[in-house]
This record gives sequence, C-alpha cells and structure tokens, in this order.
Amino acid sequence: MTPKTPEQSKTIMTDLVLPSETNPLNNLFGGELLARMDRAASIAARRHSRRIVVTASVNHVAFNRSVPLGSVVTVEAKVSRAFKTSMEVFLDVWIEDRESGIRDKANEAIYTFVAVDETGRPIQVPEIEPETKLEKERYAAALRRKQLSLVLAGKMKPNDATELKALFE
Amino acid sequence: MTPKTPEQSKTIMTDLVLPSETNPLNNLFGGELLARMDRAASIAARRHSRRIVVTASVNHVAFNRSVPLGSVVTVEAKVSRAFKTSMEVFLDVWIEDRESGIRDKANEAIYTFVAVDETGRPIQVPEIEPETKLEKERYAAALRRKQLSLVLAGKMKPNDATELKALFE
Amino acid sequence: MTPKTPEQSKTIMTDLVLPSETNPLNNLFGGELLARMDRAASIAARRHSRRIVVTASVNHVAFNRSVPLGSVVTVEAKVSRAFKTSMEVFLDVWIEDRESGIRDKANEAIYTFVAVDETGRPIQVPEIEPETKLEKERYAAALRRKQLSLVLAGKMKPNDATELKALFE
Amino acid sequence: MTPKTPEQSKTIMTDLVLPSETNPLNNLFGGELLARMDRAASIAARRHSRRIVVTASVNHVAFNRSVPLGSVVTVEAKVSRAFKTSMEVFLDVWIEDRESGIRDKANEAIYTFVAVDETGRPIQVPEIEPETKLEKERYAAALRRKQLSLVLAGKMKPNDATELKALFE
Amino acid sequence: MTPKTPEQSKTIMTDLVLPSETNPLNNLFGGELLARMDRAASIAARRHSRRIVVTASVNHVAFNRSVPLGSVVTVEAKVSRAFKTSMEVFLDVWIEDRESGIRDKANEAIYTFVAVDETGRPIQVPEIEPETKLEKERYAAALRRKQLSLVLAGKMKPNDATELKALFE
Amino acid sequence: MTPKTPEQSKTIMTDLVLPSETNPLNNLFGGELLARMDRAASIAARRHSRRIVVTASVNHVAFNRSVPLGSVVTVEAKVSRAFKTSMEVFLDVWIEDRESGIRDKANEAIYTFVAVDETGRPIQVPEIEPETKLEKERYAAALRRKQLSLVLAGKMKPNDATELKALFE
Repeated sequence: MTPKTPEQSKTIMTDLVLPSETNPLNNLFGGELLARMDRAASIAARRHSRRIVVTASVNHVAFNRSVPLGSVVTVEAKVSRAFKTSMEVFLDVWIEDRESGIRDKANEAIYTFVAVDETGRPIQVPEIEPETKLEKERYAAALRRKQLSLVLAGKMKPNDATELKALFE
Repeated sequence: MTPKTPEQSKTIMTDLVLPSETNPLNNLFGGELLARMDRAASIAARRHSRRIVVTASVNHVAFNRSVPLGSVVTVEAKVSRAFKTSMEVFLDVWIEDRESGIRDKANEAIYTFVAVDETGRPIQVPEIEPETKLEKERYAAALRRKQLSLVLAGKMKPNDATELKALFE
Repeated sequence: MTPKTPEQSKTIMTDLVLPSETNPLNNLFGGELLARMDRAASIAARRHSRRIVVTASVNHVAFNRSVPLGSVVTVEAKVSRAFKTSMEVFLDVWIEDRESGIRDKANEAIYTFVAVDETGRPIQVPEIEPETKLEKERYAAALRRKQLSLVLAGKMKPNDATELKALFE
Repeated sequence: MTPKTPEQSKTIMTDLVLPSETNPLNNLFGGELLARMDRAASIAARRHSRRIVVTASVNHVAFNRSVPLGSVVTVEAKVSRAFKTSMEVFLDVWIEDRESGIRDKANEAIYTFVAVDETGRPIQVPEIEPETKLEKERYAAALRRKQLSLVLAGKMKPNDATELKALFE
Repeated sequence: MTPKTPEQSKTIMTDLVLPSETNPLNNLFGGELLARMDRAASIAARRHSRRIVVTASVNHVAFNRSVPLGSVVTVEAKVSRAFKTSMEVFLDVWIEDRESGIRDKANEAIYTFVAVDETGRPIQVPEIEPETKLEKERYAAALRRKQLSLVLAGKMKPNDATELKALFE
Repeated sequence: MTPKTPEQSKTIMTDLVLPSETNPLNNLFGGELLARMDRAASIAARRHSRRIVVTASVNHVAFNRSVPLGSVVTVEAKVSRAFKTSMEVFLDVWIEDRESGIRDKANEAIYTFVAVDETGRPIQVPEIEPETKLEKERYAAALRRKQLSLVLAGKMKPNDATELKALFE
C-alpha cells in the first residue's frame, strides 16, 4: 500500500452560521460544530482510505472562542497519522472577518476513525507521510495520543507507553 | 476599487449526504441542494464584496444527475462577474466516487447577489478580472444573461440588449 | 391523453416563518424558500402527470422582497406548460399582513420537472390548456423560455429558436 | 365586531413526506404531523382574529391511518367556533393517491387558540357564523367540547354543563 | 400477563430549548413540544408493552405556560392505564429555574398508543397497577376518558358510558 | 459554597433514534449523538453551578457500539469533579432492548464546562463530593485528566503533573 500525504485527504467545509444552528447566546451551538467536524473528518478519513469509515472516538476538542451568528466558518480536516486500520484526523476551525477577510483560529479537534470492509470488519489503510513542519509535529504527537488512549483504556501498561513515558523523564 | 479575480472569492463546501437530506428516492433532496448552493454562493459574494449580501435571484440551476445517499458532495462557488452593486456567482457541484476518488460533475447553477450597506441600500462592489479560459467564458456570458434578465423583466428593450441580440444574427 | 388546465394542478402551501427558517437578518432564509418551492412545484407536476417527477431545472427565481420572521407565506404552484415529458411549473409567493389580511407578492419562480416511469425513463404527460389571461401569457412565454434554455445549453441553434428570435426583430 | 364564516379562516397546507419526517416504520412521524397541524391551525386562528395567537390546548387528535413516506399530505384548518377570546380550530388531513388523484381522510384534530394583544393579554375575537351542514355540526359540538374541557379542568360543575349533560339524558 | 406499575414505564427526557425550536415570540414552539411528548410517550408505551407501538390519539394537551428560549425542560411520561391493546400515557412537563433549581409545571398531556405485532395487528398488553395516590386518580379518570372518546366517536351509547354518566348525576 | 454530590446534577435524556438522525448505515449519526451529549452535559453543569455554562472542551468520547435506527437511547450526565470555575461532566450512554428491556452500554464521554457570570467572566462553582465507588474513581481520574490536558496544552510542565507522573513510576 502506497503511503499518502495529509494533503491528499484534505477536506474543506466552509459554511455560514444560521439562526437554526445557534445556542441561546447567539453563538454556534457546540453540538452543531461537533456534528460538522464529524462530517468533515469522516470525509478526510474516507479520502485517505477509500473505504467505509466509522467514528471510533473523539479524542480532544478545545472550544477556544465562540462563533457568532452570521459567521463564515471553515472546517479543515486532514488525516494526521494512520495506525493499521485506524486514522487520526486533525481538524482546524477558522472564522473569517467579513470586512478584513482575516481568518482567526476558533477551534481544534482530533477525531479517530476506523476503516471497515462491507461486512464491518476493520481493514488496513495506507500509512501517512507528513510533509510540512506542522504535519510532522502532529504525526509525532499522534503516537503519544494513541499510547495515552490505550493506557487510559487499560489496554497498555504505562511502562510500555514509551513515547508517553518520555514526556515525564 | 481594485478589481478582484474569481479565485479570490472561491468557496468550497464539501459535505456528506445524510438520510435527513434525501428525497423518497434516496437521493439528495433538490431543495436541500438549492439551500447548500445558496449558502456557498452567498459566502463567495461576501468574500468578493466584503459586504452584507442578499440573494437577488437564482438564474439557472440544471440538475443533470441525482446525488445518492452517502455521497461526498463538493459545492464550489466563485463570483463570475460584478455589475456595479450586483454579483453573478457561478456554482459547480461534484460527486466523488469513494473507491476511485474520481469526481463527476453533478450540477451547475447561477445565483445573483446584491451587496448592501447597514441600512440595506445597494452599494458598489469591485469589478471582476477573470483569469482562466473558463472564467473568461463565464464572464462574457454573464453580460448576455444580465441583458436577458432585464429583457424578460421588461426593464430593457430587446433591441438594446446588444450582446444578446448578436446571438440571433 | 386528455389535456388538463393549470387549475387542475394548483397546489397551495401556506405556512409560517419560524426562527429555525431565518437568516441572520431575521428574514426567511433563501435556501429554505427554494426548498419550499421545490416541494410545492413537485406536487403540482405530480398532480398534472400522475407520475413520479424529478426536478430538471430551476429556471428563474426573483427575490423581490424579503419575508420577515413570523410571516404567513403562501406558495402557489401551477403547471404552466407541458412539453412531451417535461412540465414548466410557475410559482407565486405571497406574504399576508396580519392586521389587514392583505396579500403582497414576494417572489416568483419557474421550475421544470420531468415525469418518469418506475425505471426512471421519461414518460409522456398530458398537454396544458390555459384558461385565464395570465395562464395564457405564461403558457406563451414558456415556449420562449424553453428555446432559450436549449440555446444556452447548446442544444438548439439560435436561428431555430423562432419564438425567441422574434423578440429581437 | 362583525362575525366571520369558517371559510374566511380556511388555511391549506399541502406538502410532501420526506425521509427526514418519518418514523422508523417509514411513515410520517406523529410529532411532525402534530407540528404541521399546529402551524396550520395557528394561521387559521390568526386569519380569523387578525391578532397574535397562542396555542391553548390540543383537544383531540385521532390518528386513523398512517401516512407513508412520499405521500402528498393536505392539512386543512378552519375556525369552527369562537368564544370571547378563544377559538376552536378544526383540522382535516388528507392523503392523495398519486395515480388516481383520489383523496383519503387520514386524520382529524381539534386545537384551541387564544388571541392576545401586544402585552400578551387575551383580547376579544369575532364570532363564527357557520354556513355548511358540516360547519354547523362542528359549531354545535364545539360548545359541548368547551363544557367538557371546563368540567374536566374542574372549572365548571357537571350540572352546569347543560349541553354536555343533555347527551346523557 | 403480569400487571406492571406506572413506575416501570417511567420515561424522563430532559433537554434544552435552543433557538431552532422556538416560535417568533422566543418560546418553545408548540409543535416541537408536541413532538417531544410524542417521542417520550411512545417510549413509555414501549417499555410497558415491550412491543412496537403506534400513536392512536392525542387526547388532551393543555399549554398552561410558555417555555422560554434557554429553558431546561423535563418531559416525564408514564402509562396511566392499559385497555387490552391500548395504553393511555400521562405526561407532565416541567421547567426548571436556573438559579433556584425550582421546577414549575408547564404542561400536561394525555396520549394513547396501541401495541402491534410485526404484521401491524393490535396485540394484548399487561394491565396497570397504580401505586401512588396520583397514579390511582389518573387510572380512574382514564376509564371516563376512554368512554368519552368512544361516545364522541359514536362507538358507544352515552347511556352505556356508566363512569362518565355518573359525573352528571 | 456547600459542596454537592454528582447525584445532584444527574441529568437523564431518554429519546428515540428517528430516520432524520441516522447515517447512511442506518445507525445514529455520530454528530447527532455528540450534540445530544453536549445538551445533556450542559444541563448537568448548570444544575451543579446554577450558572450560565459554556462548553470548554470535549475530552474524550469512545464510540464502542453503533446505535441502530429505532433504538431507545438514554444519555445520563453527572458532574464528576469541579475545579474552581470548571466542571468535568461524565456521560454514560445506554441502548435498551425492546423485548427484554435490558440496557447495554453504548458509549462513554467526558466534556468540560466553565461557569460564567452575565458578562462572560469565569466564576467559582461548588466542589464535588463523590458518593459511590464509581463516582470516587471518576473523581480521582479527573485530576489526572486535568493535568494531562494542561500538559498537552503546554500550560503545565510534565514534572509538575504529579498525579499523572505517578502513573509512569
């Protein structure tokens, strides 16, 4: 299987914030943003694997700033690392100022997807070859996150989580 | 006002087709696609004008092929020509094959937006400078469509619609 | 096949504008109105043909005035002309003033539908026999629009579009 | 205040049943039909009173037959009787067979609305003058329903509910 | 079939009121509340019968107070009485004050469901054994409501509606 | 400020899975579940703090099993630990078998909320006093998760994350 770059799975979803998607404070409702990110991330995972993909976990979503009604929001998703049958997808969310056109980072999120065959069985996916500096950082951190996830789930002993352990030494 | 290129207003909205967006034949419901295109086109018009924009008309939408449930759909919008206070936005819609990754054209559409100030009064927008061959063709055709629209609305005499008239000579 | 009158396909959809259907200016969101018109028009086409119908194109929609939150909106659709397997549907949209009960025209739109059999193949529909003055005008204009659409799509030479050409002589 | 006929408040809402409005049995979801009827009934009450109206109660809804995905559904609402500040609205729901065009009764419902002024205080509405045989029957039955409602709410003694009591003698 | 208590079917649905669920007065839209109650009631009926259930009727819904945007709303549903194949479900709706945590009753409603087998045929359900004082009152009143419903539908002679008749004596 | 127990913030949201909430595989769409959990978790945080609360992050969501169309799903949220102005909310999601009534765990999730005053400034919340064994485990783990989150965000040196570090020794 030929490895792919994160760029090859890049998915852009630019959309408005309409009243039906807000919370009582007139900002984009958190659940709606989580749903949009799930849709964008699943497309990125599908583009990487060319397979049916299912959400395995949401690993981290930081809501740094609220997104007001009427905003133009861009969700950008790229596969940051692949592990046999699973893919970590990194998402960046920007808001765009109407008058200046300047884009501000609003959120970051990490979702994990698994590729499955027609019967629902996990199936292998291509590896990732990061290109940019940021892609390489995210690629490296993905392994620590993977180990962390296994440790927290009790599926790996802390002492075997070499990447993670190194953080504390 | 410095003219802008169509590329500067380019807006990409990639999304899935979920069951809540289908018609009884299990294809993307036409009204849902019209709504997605309206959202994408209004962002393109806003990026071109950096103003509040309102939909003035939908000039043409051809539904060439249906979009099945589960598809990845990309709506791409670019301002094709500007006329004082109004902007014609051209939209291309593609479906992407999951296994091969090949994109097929599903639809084309043309929407018109008007830029307004805070009081709702129409306000001038930058001109368009088309770059590619396709952008130039669409730019030229936009004038014929504009004249046609004025003729059909009884706001221009057919004989004054020089661009349009030329078609029939 | 016995011809039918536009009245026989008349479809009335009266509904409110709720907050979930507005844009950030607190007016009915354009995409929502396009979707409502698509639903009403498809019912009119189905009533005329008694067949499964699919949207072929949106030929023209003029947004003359915005529709504020809380309005009572009436979409009225009638088949204006039939061509072998396709039907042009003309839509009028009114807003109703709560206190006086007076109805104002907000929008007009033209959609085209094709009747299909169970296998998706286009199938013949009855002709239209217009009755009122307005129905007759729309019936006549439909042919010009049909020719225009074929010319713009490159499927008819401008010189063969006799009805349309006559406009410019 | 000049009395009005039920016909003057008649409201027609014809619409499709799309997949997003179904239950797991592929029929129109009950809650969605209740919502559509609420919308149609409130328009009828508003047309009768030319006031802001609020739903006071749903008095009876009988789901006689299910409405399958893809159906054309017509909700028809008319004010059946007015009591000082409240209005009883009677709704009939039909499904239309695509091939024959025959309409079958699917549901009946009774909603009650109150007219209020800008401060939310109940305000008087015109009386109803029923015209057809059916309108007269519903007008008469409305009083029995009103009394029943008061009795069940403990706001009227059964022995004062003269109309209702007559049923049992 | 072992009888069950209302408590065994108790269903709690606590949720927010978001902008997409409001009416133009910024309160929970009546239709949305009717839909939520339908969902909660059907779960209660399903828990009592362990069968597929379909909404047979909405017998009474009183909208005593409006539910403002941003509220926390709790819908609580319990089967109040069973009749061979049908179940009456009683719903109480509360709003919760954010600062004090005090819950106020906003609405009451009564829905009726029928249990069906896989072919859609009505099928027997367990009886109800009310425990608390309130459950016993509702159990007793359910019979009067049942008779009333039959009388109004012309399926029972008023004189045979013994429970109901007793009210007027 | 008197500490509170997790039980005092317990929030139960039982609901159906309707077709409009599914993905193309006929299971509950991941984004819809993320939105439901966001709603339930924010109610729990509000019940604990009696304040306006905003989502700060989604720390972990594991999708262990898919939730099929027609399921009865119960989301249960409780505040697991409070830190000055923030609250960790632990969510458990169950599916209920219709015939046996047995509940299976489908998902677990952890969200973090911040309490704010009317001007949006973070404000102190009561502490948590866990009661059951499970609540105590989650309370203890919350500190490790908090430290981890700070370390990953570069706001705490790994060596200061005493609780976390202990895991690797």
